[in-house]
Amino acid sequence: MKQSKAKKCTVRFEPSGLKIEIPSGTTLLDTARKAGIYLTSICGGDGYCGKCKVTIDDGQFQARPTTLLTPEEIRENFALACQTKVLSDMTVTVPKFHALQVSQILVDADAHRFSELAGDIREGVFEFDPLVRKLLVEMSPPTVQDHTADHERLYVAIRRQIEAPIMQTGFRILQGLSKILTKTNYKVAVTIGRRGGTTEVIEVEPAGRVKTNLAVAVDLGTTTVVAHLIDLTNVTTLDTEATYNSQINFGEDYIRRIIYAEENNAFDEMQNRIVSDVNNLIVTLAERQKIDLQDITAVVCAGNTAMIHFLLNLDPTRIRKEPYIASVGFMPPIRAAEAGIQINKRGLLYCLPSVAAYVGSDIVAGVLTTRIYTQKGISLFVDIGTNGEVALGNRDWLVCASSSAGPAFEGSGVRHGMRAGAGAIEKLTVLPDRSIEYKTIGDTHPAGICGSGLLDTLAELFVNGIIDRTGRFRTNGDQRLTEGDEGLQFQLVRASNEHHEIVITQADINNLVRSKAGVFAAIRVLMNSTQTKPKDLDVIYIAGGFGNFLNVRQAVTIGMLPDVPPEKIRFVGNTSIAGAKTVLLSREALETAEKIADSMTYFDLMNHPGYMDEFIRAGFLPHTDLSLFPSVKLAAEKV
Amino acid sequence: MKQSKAKKCTVRFEPSGLKIEIPSGTTLLDTARKAGIYLTSICGGDGYCGKCKVTIDDGQFQARPTTLLTPEEIRENFALACQTKVLSDMTVTVPKFHALQVSQILVDADAHRFSELAGDIREGVFEFDPLVRKLLVEMSPPTVQDHTADHERLYVAIRRQIEAPIMQTGFRILQGLSKILTKTNYKVAVTIGRRGGTTEVIEVEPAGRVKTNLAVAVDLGTTTVVAHLIDLTNVTTLDTEATYNSQINFGEDYIRRIIYAEENNAFDEMQNRIVSDVNNLIVTLAERQKIDLQDITAVVCAGNTAMIHFLLNLDPTRIRKEPYIASVGFMPPIRAAEAGIQINKRGLLYCLPSVAAYVGSDIVAGVLTTRIYTQKGISLFVDIGTNGEVALGNRDWLVCASSSAGPAFEGSGVRHGMRAGAGAIEKLTVLPDRSIEYKTIGDTHPAGICGSGLLDTLAELFVNGIIDRTGRFRTNGDQRLTEGDEGLQFQLVRASNEHHEIVITQADINNLVRSKAGVFAAIRVLMNSTQTKPKDLDVIYIAGGFGNFLNVRQAVTIGMLPDVPPEKIRFVGNTSIAGAKTVLLSREALETAEKIADSMTYFDLMNHPGYMDEFIRAGFLPHTDLSLFPSVKLAAEKV
Repeated sequence: MKQSKAKKCTVRFEPSGLKIEIPSGTTLLDTARKAGIYLTSICGGDGYCGKCKVTIDDGQFQARPTTLLTPEEIRENFALACQTKVLSDMTVTVPKFHALQVSQILVDADAHRFSELAGDIREGVFEFDPLVRKLLVEMSPPTVQDHTADHERLYVAIRRQIEAPIMQTGFRILQGLSKILTKTNYKVAVTIGRRGGTTEVIEVEPAGRVKTNLAVAVDLGTTTVVAHLIDLTNVTTLDTEATYNSQINFGEDYIRRIIYAEENNAFDEMQNRIVSDVNNLIVTLAERQKIDLQDITAVVCAGNTAMIHFLLNLDPTRIRKEPYIASVGFMPPIRAAEAGIQINKRGLLYCLPSVAAYVGSDIVAGVLTTRIYTQKGISLFVDIGTNGEVALGNRDWLVCASSSAGPAFEGSGVRHGMRAGAGAIEKLTVLPDRSIEYKTIGDTHPAGICGSGLLDTLAELFVNGIIDRTGRFRTNGDQRLTEGDEGLQFQLVRASNEHHEIVITQADINNLVRSKAGVFAAIRVLMNSTQTKPKDLDVIYIAGGFGNFLNVRQAVTIGMLPDVPPEKIRFVGNTSIAGAKTVLLSREALETAEKIADSMTYFDLMNHPGYMDEFIRAGFLPHTDLSLFPSVKLAAEKV
Repeated sequence: MKQSKAKKCTVRFEPSGLKIEIPSGTTLLDTARKAGIYLTSICGGDGYCGKCKVTIDDGQFQARPTTLLTPEEIRENFALACQTKVLSDMTVTVPKFHALQVSQILVDADAHRFSELAGDIREGVFEFDPLVRKLLVEMSPPTVQDHTADHERLYVAIRRQIEAPIMQTGFRILQGLSKILTKTNYKVAVTIGRRGGTTEVIEVEPAGRVKTNLAVAVDLGTTTVVAHLIDLTNVTTLDTEATYNSQINFGEDYIRRIIYAEENNAFDEMQNRIVSDVNNLIVTLAERQKIDLQDITAVVCAGNTAMIHFLLNLDPTRIRKEPYIASVGFMPPIRAAEAGIQINKRGLLYCLPSVAAYVGSDIVAGVLTTRIYTQKGISLFVDIGTNGEVALGNRDWLVCASSSAGPAFEGSGVRHGMRAGAGAIEKLTVLPDRSIEYKTIGDTHPAGICGSGLLDTLAELFVNGIIDRTGRFRTNGDQRLTEGDEGLQFQLVRASNEHHEIVITQADINNLVRSKAGVFAAIRVLMNSTQTKPKDLDVIYIAGGFGNFLNVRQAVTIGMLPDVPPEKIRFVGNTSIAGAKTVLLSREALETAEKIADSMTYFDLMNHPGYMDEFIRAGFLPHTDLSLFPSVKLAAEKV
């Protein structure tokens, strides 16, 4: 096949009909990225995840050989987008399974939870003292007896209301100060922002504007970006919105994205993506609530360290290289406009502090929100996402770690895994007759299995003896167990006219077991290091995108969590945005978050001598050492 | 005469040959301003000072009638530029007396004095701790045991060297931080600036750059702008330069300039003028010393309140309206680039604090430099410039006031008055035979009389009986006393082939007496209010542009200063730039300046019940009450 480098090809994507012109030789994955079309790609284009399948309807191409497509798929013109180069004008169909959906269910549940959290602040858990507030400031106008300059007159008046030993005011405000004070006869609304130890005058406006002060809390997830619009004058969550992180085209986990950005010098592009996601959320909220973007004076973000780096275009490259260092852990507040976020032009952007390259501000937000740092008893906090971060401690000490066991419980690396969206199986039970009962989100046709469903599946297959303690299928004649393209697979849902068959493969199970083993090994390292026994644990908090019907008992059954009574395990959902919101509403909460981040001892598992052994032991169901799981022992010995 | 509004006229100015096209009907003063040609204009274009004389060589014009030109001048084609509208192409000659000259003599003397001041700092008057400094910062690179983020690692290392509880770093620095730290293996030169209670990281560079750190101290005078280039690494004044304030075209005093800016919405233009004056000085210094502007990290300015407002484009309009209020008294540091000053793009601009609209940071600088705030005994500080500001006090209390008596001692409102430049008579004596001996700056042909010369003239005319105690000429047959265009005038220097005649007129004397009366009345109000007697004064400091041969004794003779022994009076020159430099070299000095500005009690003489009476009494030579001037009494009674 002959190809001319200079040749331009037009690629049309169905069903959207989007067209884009690219040079001949471009891969279909890059073409889709340029067109802004999302294709699932876990490996980021290296050709080994096999997720970026598309069908080529028409046109010439050159494909690298792959074992990740079945002969049947090849017959149906499926191709791996990352391994396929465009050589002519082309039409490509993007299969439905790539489609991103935002689960309104999840967001609504979050919104509900966090309205309650805002309530906490009113009740005095933290003093209500938002990071950016508007004060009604009235001064007596100057007289011949009182010739204090306007700037100092304003400071004196502000300090009569709040403690602000060190104050700053932007130059442009100073230039217009005398005019506005004269015009308003020295009665103004002053917007002040807290910036570390200093208090900044962000805006001086006519007094009537004191009633308008809005802010946005943001959770920057690797997969999902969630924003809550908050009225700071009455501590009300006005509205919430979520979207998928549009960096996802560059890899499903952030390490892939960092590599992609490095190899393609695409740091600006990475920033643009996440910033426009945030801007889109803000604009959507503002339009729906009919508010002016200029009235939003602050944005507070929590997220993993890499996401914060991408948002701010800080150098993230050493996050993925030993010794795994962040550029900035405690990000000082900056103008939101400096990062391209479109709120009031002098509004501030705050990021919660992180602990380390792999324990981000989302975890700090979780510790803040669950308040484990205030308790006498020991709590365990587990965030199951791409990595599985773990924090352990009480009011005297806090330790944390991150396992890099992979995002299997987010549905990645699992044939029919999906996120907690409509049609996701979120609950699954093997009945005594070994038939399978399930519940989908939205009670619609099953499309795949989300985190809580995968947890149920693994536990139910195990306790019902369909898999053994090593996670391997027992070949006991069950007709649902067949040999598939990737080895043995078990049919969970039969195909119908409305939906395809849903199976779980041996590879899926291996991935899930690896994931839970990573989490449990991290927990063990922290507990061993602090001489904490399971009975010492007062409570285990599970955060993450599992959906709302997480059967916490099953997390113990598979050996992901220590064996504690089920009532000690609590699913707390998205604590990242909860923490962002708490901080937004209280400077004391931000200071507390800083203290938490500062005081947490980080365990680098990659370099921890005991971690590998713990990981191998946890690679069984529930564990090699059954004495650690007395409540599971019977079931384990039975299977 | 018919005129078309749309018609364009070309005006050529001789001897420069500069040409400019303007619409028909534009005044010659505005035309000169647009062409950037300086014409003396005290009244700012209102037609009553008569200083903006030019000769019209060719072309049609329309002139308003004036009494300020003699019939002879009118025959010689003189016109008042502000009262003359251009109606056709025109050629105009700008007489030499408009020419601005910067006295290198003055600047050199300043430079000398302030090199000594820098010495003070080394000797521990103030701790050497420049507002912007470069630190050599060495960190141990991160390891798997030490995963502190780069930003926090840097802060820890900086705090090992200096006290900096609250630190800030610009966003762009943070974005590049990891790259520079990796490249330099964590050994860098860090430029830090003090901004109030916070310490800002301004730049992070390779370690070798620690040896380069320059700054500029500036005195923003209404008439003259002076800049000193300082090497902060070894506390050396490398070079000095001065220029005339190019706002001078809009009025010789700053009140005129504020009015002009208000009437013509010319605030931006005012800022541009003073900023480009400062930039020109900096560029001149940098070129001469072969340094890179990027190596200048700070500029520190002192000046009167209006000049600081013009420089920063703060609203100055209420400085001139009761109750006479500044926009900003304590200006926070900003980026110099924000004000248009061309140094390092992140370099800082500091302004010393002011006390009130009419007691600016130049006076605070004077109090700082003379150290009267540290003394047990009482000192008096007098700055004779456009206004004549006065400060009085000791280590327990400080009071200050400003008299608006006019800039007669700067040569304004005096026929042959001029600034302390080449050819200025700076010393004048009436010999026993009533002949006159004088000395000019540069020992060249006399061109006019500067401040110290005017002081001598007034005192010598008085003690020799040529004028009486009311300041009026005695008509005793001296042939040098003649009737001129403005009444009686006394010839000081006869015309020769090389120079014109130099006279002093009755109007000149009246202006000088008014000026000294304003200063003395201000001193009296402060002394009366604090119950300070002349004998309580330990020392009187006189600052200002008098030249270097000020006969301080004469200042007592005419009744401008209280009658103290001459050895108690010290001429201290330009204390404004001395203070700017002191502050630049020591944060403690800036804090001290702030304390001085904060603690000084300001007396608003415009609204002080006793001021007018004192002013009238001081309108005599030396005063109505001779008991206040025992040392002058004899001379006074004789005349």
